Amino acid sequence: MKLQVSRRQRATPYTPRVEALGVSGFSVVNHTILPKGFGRPVAEDYWHLKSHVQLWDVGCQRQVELHGPDAERLVQLMTPRDLRRAQAGQCLYAPIIDDEAGMLNDPIILKLADDRFWLSISDSDLLLWAKGLALGMGLEVDVDEPDVWPLAVQGPSSDDLVARVFGEQVRDIRFFRFERCQFEGHPLVVARSGFSRQGGFEIYVDDFTLGADVWDALWQAGEDLELAAGCPNLIERIEGGLLSYGNEMTRQNNPFECGLAKYCQLDSGLDSIGMKALTAIAKRGHAREIRGLIFDGDSCPACQQPWSLTIEERQVGYVTSAIWSPRFEKNVALAMLERGFWQAGTAVDVACGDGSLRAGIVTDLPMEDG
Amino acid sequence: MKLQVSRRQRATPYTPRVEALGVSGFSVVNHTILPKGFGRPVAEDYWHLKSHVQLWDVGCQRQVELHGPDAERLVQLMTPRDLRRAQAGQCLYAPIIDDEAGMLNDPIILKLADDRFWLSISDSDLLLWAKGLALGMGLEVDVDEPDVWPLAVQGPSSDDLVARVFGEQVRDIRFFRFERCQFEGHPLVVARSGFSRQGGFEIYVDDFTLGADVWDALWQAGEDLELAAGCPNLIERIEGGLLSYGNEMTRQNNPFECGLAKYCQLDSGLDSIGMKALTAIAKRGHAREIRGLIFDGDSCPACQQPWSLTIEERQVGYVTSAIWSPRFEKNVALAMLERGFWQAGTAVDVACGDGSLRAGIVTDLPMEDG
Repeated sequence: MKLQVSRRQRATPYTPRVEALGVSGFSVVNHTILPKGFGRPVAEDYWHLKSHVQLWDVGCQRQVELHGPDAERLVQLMTPRDLRRAQAGQCLYAPIIDDEAGMLNDPIILKLADDRFWLSISDSDLLLWAKGLALGMGLEVDVDEPDVWPLAVQGPSSDDLVARVFGEQVRDIRFFRFERCQFEGHPLVVARSGFSRQGGFEIYVDDFTLGADVWDALWQAGEDLELAAGCPNLIERIEGGLLSYGNEMTRQNNPFECGLAKYCQLDSGLDSIGMKALTAIAKRGHAREIRGLIFDGDSCPACQQPWSLTIEERQVGYVTSAIWSPRFEKNVALAMLERGFWQAGTAVDVACGDGSLRAGIVTDLPMEDG
Repeated sequence: MKLQVSRRQRATPYTPRVEALGVSGFSVVNHTILPKGFGRPVAEDYWHLKSHVQLWDVGCQRQVELHGPDAERLVQLMTPRDLRRAQAGQCLYAPIIDDEAGMLNDPIILKLADDRFWLSISDSDLLLWAKGLALGMGLEVDVDEPDVWPLAVQGPSSDDLVARVFGEQVRDIRFFRFERCQFEGHPLVVARSGFSRQGGFEIYVDDFTLGADVWDALWQAGEDLELAAGCPNLIERIEGGLLSYGNEMTRQNNPFECGLAKYCQLDSGLDSIGMKALTAIAKRGHAREIRGLIFDGDSCPACQQPWSLTIEERQVGYVTSAIWSPRFEKNVALAMLERGFWQAGTAVDVACGDGSLRAGIVTDLPMEDG
């Protein structure tokens, strides 16, 4: 399907670069375009990502900045994850839920200072939620979208590449920590994080006009590292169990269903939004939970709407994302399984989008090596 | 550009129908796909829309339902438009603003009952704003997205078509009013409204599984009316001065800039959000305002990022949407002009996206017949 682009689907500082490199398609995330491929098969991008290093335009990962005396209070209200021991320089993956414990977003929270946070969001206008709460509760906090355009470097050679541009000290940045590193006199937030399991960094370029220079510097430094332009890889993220808001979860799902129980501190005494609902759900047991799935047959189509999973014609769940895996030489998927059917090894029938019924096996996440 | 589709870009009940009819592209609005063409030139769709009748899949116009004792209080807090005399059965176009008077959305509000409203939204997650406010203020109101999928019938033959399916009483529905009309035993909200100036209806199909039947009934009834599948037409909406949130306006614009002063009742005594900021802006005068623009040269490219407008190299505004008009035989645009330069007839230079500088003339909106 062709995407019609207007101002409403915002370009990023990197858009001219990815266009020059032959980007073959886009998705729209947070009203911003996200490259989805560069004309190579997804499987080729997958092996490249696992072997070398890629540069990803993830400018669509917009930041919601909370700044002011009540910033800490607001961010803690927004998540059941206990942030009280979080330190400046830390990245924290966190479910954001409403009063019924429905998932609204699953950002990475960057604690910049005690009174300043960035929420690096998935695809929903979390700014409106934060600002609505702040205004409704009379909190003293500014909620805004800063001029920040993340650029991801992912893959095993990421350290080598990023060290060449930002200095050797990036090698010492721990997982889910960030440091401010100089680029031509600008201190940029460089975090060891990213939407793959292959290691790497996200660089929070905090000036649109600087973006192309950062891209170019990395691009030029990567010539001998087989650096390629890339994007989040569906095969790799499914095998790695990385969830996508809007695909694997919606407001109809609670964090337990999404496998995020470890980010819900029910006994913390916190009065975060949705905590009561979460506690009630924990007491009665949640009804479904996300798992991996490996299934037979040739390369499956894209999963545009949930595919039913059945056992002897009884529905026991549904697939949310699926693709052919060259590593398993089978199709891999993320799926929401009803209680009693989410144990690894459970055999299910997959109502694949092409009309076929295929044999599948539930797996844990991330998927084990095949 | 190719659009990659997953569950995150929701299909509508009409998606299989528009695909069968050869839809050639989609946009994404409210996490939902919106058809953008059917393989015919936009100009051909334009003349057809002005002469006959079209069926539009506008399922992306999601509803935010406010229901409960505080629904009326919440909706009035959300807009500076005075809703106190609104009646059930009325549609009300309304700016939704934040505390700094920044535009968050420009929905049509449908007053279903004194304690129940639908906000038929443009492209931002207004549900999060409404729910955040309600929760923060402790209001007694349910905020949710109901299972409603608008379908638009637009064009001069709309009355004839809709009367054949929903009965002759639809002819008596006044502009921006709605009635509940029977379809196979289901009472559906049918409103005289829509995103064109050619007349017509929006049918609020409140059950996904009913959508295809409603589409089919209208499709079959329209055979002798030259009915075609269509979509919001960029030429027609620019000439008609219909604004698109995210294109013509963002959170950086206030309602005065968007030409929406008549929907801001500053002397009403209402304590709506942003009213103080609006009053302050009114006092000092707003800095820019939206206008039409007609400019020379051959068919311009799509406006993906604002194009600068200058007079003797001084910037006096920017274009937000533009396209070739077969009626004017010139390019038409919507543009934001700085104070002092928004009078109709003002001559400006347009920095067109193809690199050319073109002569343009500011117009009022809607544009007069050429």
